Amino acid sequence: MKITPRITLLGAGPGDPDLLTVKGVKVLQSANVVLYDALANTCLLDYAPAHALKIFVGKRAGKDGIAQSEIHKQMVHYACTYGHVVRLKGGDPFVFGRGHEELAYAREQGIQASVVPGISSAIASPELQGIPLTGRGLSESFWVLTGTTQSEQLSEDLSLAIQSTATIVILMGMNKLSEISKLYTLYGKPHIPAMVTVNSSLPNEAFVIGCIHEIAEKAQALIAQGPGTIVIGEVVRQHPAWALLQSCESWKYAC
Amino acid sequence: MKITPRITLLGAGPGDPDLLTVKGVKVLQSANVVLYDALANTCLLDYAPAHALKIFVGKRAGKDGIAQSEIHKQMVHYACTYGHVVRLKGGDPFVFGRGHEELAYAREQGIQASVVPGISSAIASPELQGIPLTGRGLSESFWVLTGTTQSEQLSEDLSLAIQSTATIVILMGMNKLSEISKLYTLYGKPHIPAMVTVNSSLPNEAFVIGCIHEIAEKAQALIAQGPGTIVIGEVVRQHPAWALLQSCESWKYAC
Repeated sequence: MKITPRITLLGAGPGDPDLLTVKGVKVLQSANVVLYDALANTCLLDYAPAHALKIFVGKRAGKDGIAQSEIHKQMVHYACTYGHVVRLKGGDPFVFGRGHEELAYAREQGIQASVVPGISSAIASPELQGIPLTGRGLSESFWVLTGTTQSEQLSEDLSLAIQSTATIVILMGMNKLSEISKLYTLYGKPHIPAMVTVNSSLPNEAFVIGCIHEIAEKAQALIAQGPGTIVIGEVVRQHPAWALLQSCESWKYAC
Repeated sequence: MKITPRITLLGAGPGDPDLLTVKGVKVLQSANVVLYDALANTCLLDYAPAHALKIFVGKRAGKDGIAQSEIHKQMVHYACTYGHVVRLKGGDPFVFGRGHEELAYAREQGIQASVVPGISSAIASPELQGIPLTGRGLSESFWVLTGTTQSEQLSEDLSLAIQSTATIVILMGMNKLSEISKLYTLYGKPHIPAMVTVNSSLPNEAFVIGCIHEIAEKAQALIAQGPGTIVIGEVVRQHPAWALLQSCESWKYAC
């Protein structure tokens, strides 16, 4: 049988396997090989045929993962050898996912490649906690940043973001929480409401809410639990637990 | 049979019915009533049981829609009368969708209510055109704004957004394109690359690319075609057609 190499980048969504799209299910059902990340729920591999190869190419906590260039080579190698390679990535492939680099590489090699969007935790994590990113009279926009840039520094955009009225969402920033918190204090906004949530949409989802100046301390126990989303802005007051927080400890949490 | 009223806000995604989540399918399958928006693909109603009521509560082009307060009342009325009401909304319910107001209203009335995220066109529209919102060396963040605020003015956040290095995504801004374009010129950035896309993920998807100063003119024919997404930033150069544009008309498009 003639092999027709092709690659589909597929967004797995935030964690709950039911937050995969119908299109995602169909894509997996036609996979010959699945190359999957640490953030993609492995339950999703069950959609792929039994004979499909399922290969882990993510990073395990505390260990270096496979180099990006190696993933590129594997994608192309498996596509040329087996046909349809599904590159299954947590969240959405084009949100800090290096998905575009993978798409571009595949196309440079003359291999047909496409992308299927996934639910991004940038939006779903606050949503599943009852927090809208925008709201009439609360916030007219939201700004999504990475806590970890190529240079491993906080994005310089964050200083601008703090000065705006946008809801701020930070992905991959759990290890930068203290630094983020200090930056808000520096700009005179230590009392902005913030939420940190980990393992969104999964049974072990957890969160903390509080003012940004105290959130690093409050979120300490969450840092090791899984990938987190940081949400900062007035919209956090919409969290069902915010009112309780105010009444119980208003002296401390009078943001 | 005892009626247990409940309401699920469901994100329909950008248009392609296969971009609904698996959870979305399950939610619709258990609907007694579906209240759906103009932006939700009506194909999705087929997932609901034949006996379920399917009621349009959106805005038709050029006509006033049902008032938000009326939608609130209908949600509660149908939930109390029939049981499970699915409020099907285009894109994601918590991105400029007033979904949170609906959730809050339902809960105030003592009705169990939850939200199921959908693929937002804020991310998927550029993605399906091959444009990543972020990219190493290109953009470390993206900022999503509405073109139409409560006061029907351009969001004041836009002036700040222009001064940042973030990729800018504007929803519901098709009628403000000239104004947006002028603002970029005012801030000395008339040559920033921009894309406008309509009917994302549907067979009639269309786009234009160009510099921001000329995009309003180029997108003129798209404005009447459907809901659009405006993407502004260096990442637009990643669009497969950008290189062609440069080589064909470089005198005009030398952004």
